Amino acid sequence: MTVDPVELTQDLIRLPSVTPESEAPIAMLHALLEDAGFLCTRVDRNGIPNLHARWGRKGPVLGFNGHVDVVPPGDPDSWTSDPFGAEIRDGFLYGRGACDMKSGVAAFVAAAIEATERDIDGSVVLAITGDEEGDGIDGTAAILDWMRQTGEGMDACIVGEPTCPDHMGQMIKIGRRGSLTAWITAIGQQGHSAYPHQARNPIHGMIELLARLRAFPLDDDSDHFDETTLQVTGFDTGNAANNVIPARCTAMVNIRFNDAHSGVSLSNWLRAQAETVSRATDIRFDTDIKVSGESFVTAPGPLTDMVQRAVGNVTGIVPSLSTTGGTSDARFLARHCPVVEVGLVGATMHKVDEQVAVDHIHQLKAIYGRIIESYFA
Amino acid sequence: MTVDPVELTQDLIRLPSVTPESEAPIAMLHALLEDAGFLCTRVDRNGIPNLHARWGRKGPVLGFNGHVDVVPPGDPDSWTSDPFGAEIRDGFLYGRGACDMKSGVAAFVAAAIEATERDIDGSVVLAITGDEEGDGIDGTAAILDWMRQTGEGMDACIVGEPTCPDHMGQMIKIGRRGSLTAWITAIGQQGHSAYPHQARNPIHGMIELLARLRAFPLDDDSDHFDETTLQVTGFDTGNAANNVIPARCTAMVNIRFNDAHSGVSLSNWLRAQAETVSRATDIRFDTDIKVSGESFVTAPGPLTDMVQRAVGNVTGIVPSLSTTGGTSDARFLARHCPVVEVGLVGATMHKVDEQVAVDHIHQLKAIYGRIIESYFA
Repeated sequence: MTVDPVELTQDLIRLPSVTPESEAPIAMLHALLEDAGFLCTRVDRNGIPNLHARWGRKGPVLGFNGHVDVVPPGDPDSWTSDPFGAEIRDGFLYGRGACDMKSGVAAFVAAAIEATERDIDGSVVLAITGDEEGDGIDGTAAILDWMRQTGEGMDACIVGEPTCPDHMGQMIKIGRRGSLTAWITAIGQQGHSAYPHQARNPIHGMIELLARLRAFPLDDDSDHFDETTLQVTGFDTGNAANNVIPARCTAMVNIRFNDAHSGVSLSNWLRAQAETVSRATDIRFDTDIKVSGESFVTAPGPLTDMVQRAVGNVTGIVPSLSTTGGTSDARFLARHCPVVEVGLVGATMHKVDEQVAVDHIHQLKAIYGRIIESYFA
Repeated sequence: MTVDPVELTQDLIRLPSVTPESEAPIAMLHALLEDAGFLCTRVDRNGIPNLHARWGRKGPVLGFNGHVDVVPPGDPDSWTSDPFGAEIRDGFLYGRGACDMKSGVAAFVAAAIEATERDIDGSVVLAITGDEEGDGIDGTAAILDWMRQTGEGMDACIVGEPTCPDHMGQMIKIGRRGSLTAWITAIGQQGHSAYPHQARNPIHGMIELLARLRAFPLDDDSDHFDETTLQVTGFDTGNAANNVIPARCTAMVNIRFNDAHSGVSLSNWLRAQAETVSRATDIRFDTDIKVSGESFVTAPGPLTDMVQRAVGNVTGIVPSLSTTGGTSDARFLARHCPVVEVGLVGATMHKVDEQVAVDHIHQLKAIYGRIIESYFA
């Protein structure tokens, strides 16, 4: 049984699955993989469709992970062609999910089916979810929970997310910085701007706190990571009267942190800064903190070497090992087994006219094929 | 002809005149003053009713200024009695305009009518407007423009605004700090918070600018004024996505400034600070500045001495000379002649259950009577 990864990508794009409405593509892959001899289990949770497909019964187990949900296309009229049409023009395939990441799923499905035609000394698991672009709490995390409960598992996992900024073969990802968001409310006392001594201006307190957070040197680069960065992404008062000191204001701070920190250490640091400014200014700070992921890294070694070689063999380029970028489901997988992300050029992901070079899909399938081959060699 | 200032206050309150809808009380005062022998001229501009009433033909001219428009009552159900009912309970008169400032107008109208029963060696002018609580540009300013055009004028002016924070006789106002508002927009470049080096965060630039503005020592107290104060009264991004660095943000800064500064000097200072931060941060600042009033002062001297004595004689308290508080029409009058504000306790102005002690209205009428007497003595 041979599967063309480009045709499979087109078939998947033509089943619109704006997150988390992914029943159609999950059902299609379920049927396809069952036909190919995989043992398929639907691992849905809270209405989110998830698929666990396994070929082989013994270890070691090499996993592949990906998602078939996509972000909304925005205004379809701003697209050159139907965002769910999967049209090919001049060697490029256009559509929502073309690079993020129905192509990646199609490439590892095609590679895995092809590999099972040969006898492989272990098992291949495909963990495919319909919930990555949203909160992601009932997607890959649900599959991993199910695996833990049923004694399933993986010894290593490849994630098919796009990983190359500009050109194919450029980069693979071996980890990610953590991400923490703090919603801070400063509470003072309302008053007239002509009588500031009868009020306590929460904006002044917030400016002092944020200037302090900004000025604090969090760290330099660490071994596998860029430096920790802090960005104030929101600041609001909703006050229209220029002569009124408002009673409260809110700010939003997003920290991307490396392995010199943890969600807990940064939360403590942030609360201590707020406490210090509060004592000095008599402004109270309420701080609501959410850690959406801790930092993680798969240390360079045999697994990353093997993936680098596979990419190099197919593309002629030795990819760099990176931990840059936003979060992905690799943050869940990293708690379970070593994980490496390797995929296409992501320049157009989430944008109008999302596209991928047709050749690159074939290359990616070949890369995944070599990874399977090397892993079980 | 004798006018009871309390009854006149009640009559005025019972003609609701939420700014600038003041036709009814202006027309009522017009008729009353004409009956009393004043030469009355309506000096309306852009639909705003204004009244110029003069008794006497020769100089010197002592003016009184006040307004009969009021701020909205808010929810009438939160008042103990009808905000336009002018009810008297336990020696207090309740209603919108009870202290700000239908009572003040009633007191000087009653005092002026009484004074004209005696022969006075000069003229008394009452300049009464229906537009002080709004923008004020077609109120007292319009009366002054008309006076300039017709050869009318005043040699000194008393404004009947409430001037006492807590108790009657406590304070008169001889000037006001200036007021300047700057609406600042910071323009950077939108981006993802995980890739801050590919964006330019306008919030960070704004925080730096505002921290700089806050830290700069504008001045200490000057001879007749409190120190200049700067309050940030607004800061907004309207960004809900914690991982997006927005393209722009806005802030509102209100400066109350003494005679060490002018609207121009502060505007230049503010723009220079923005320029400095802009060079350092690569964030562009658009700054829109409005000077709603320059600082002004009637230097302590014979006029203020005379007003202080009048208050002292009636209340037994020698009032302090102050330049605190928000703007009033005194800022227009000060360009024309020396001006002093003397009035009631303003603690409940603009609030629910606005009220004034009935006794204080009588005292205020007596104070204005003594001022007229002394001025022409």
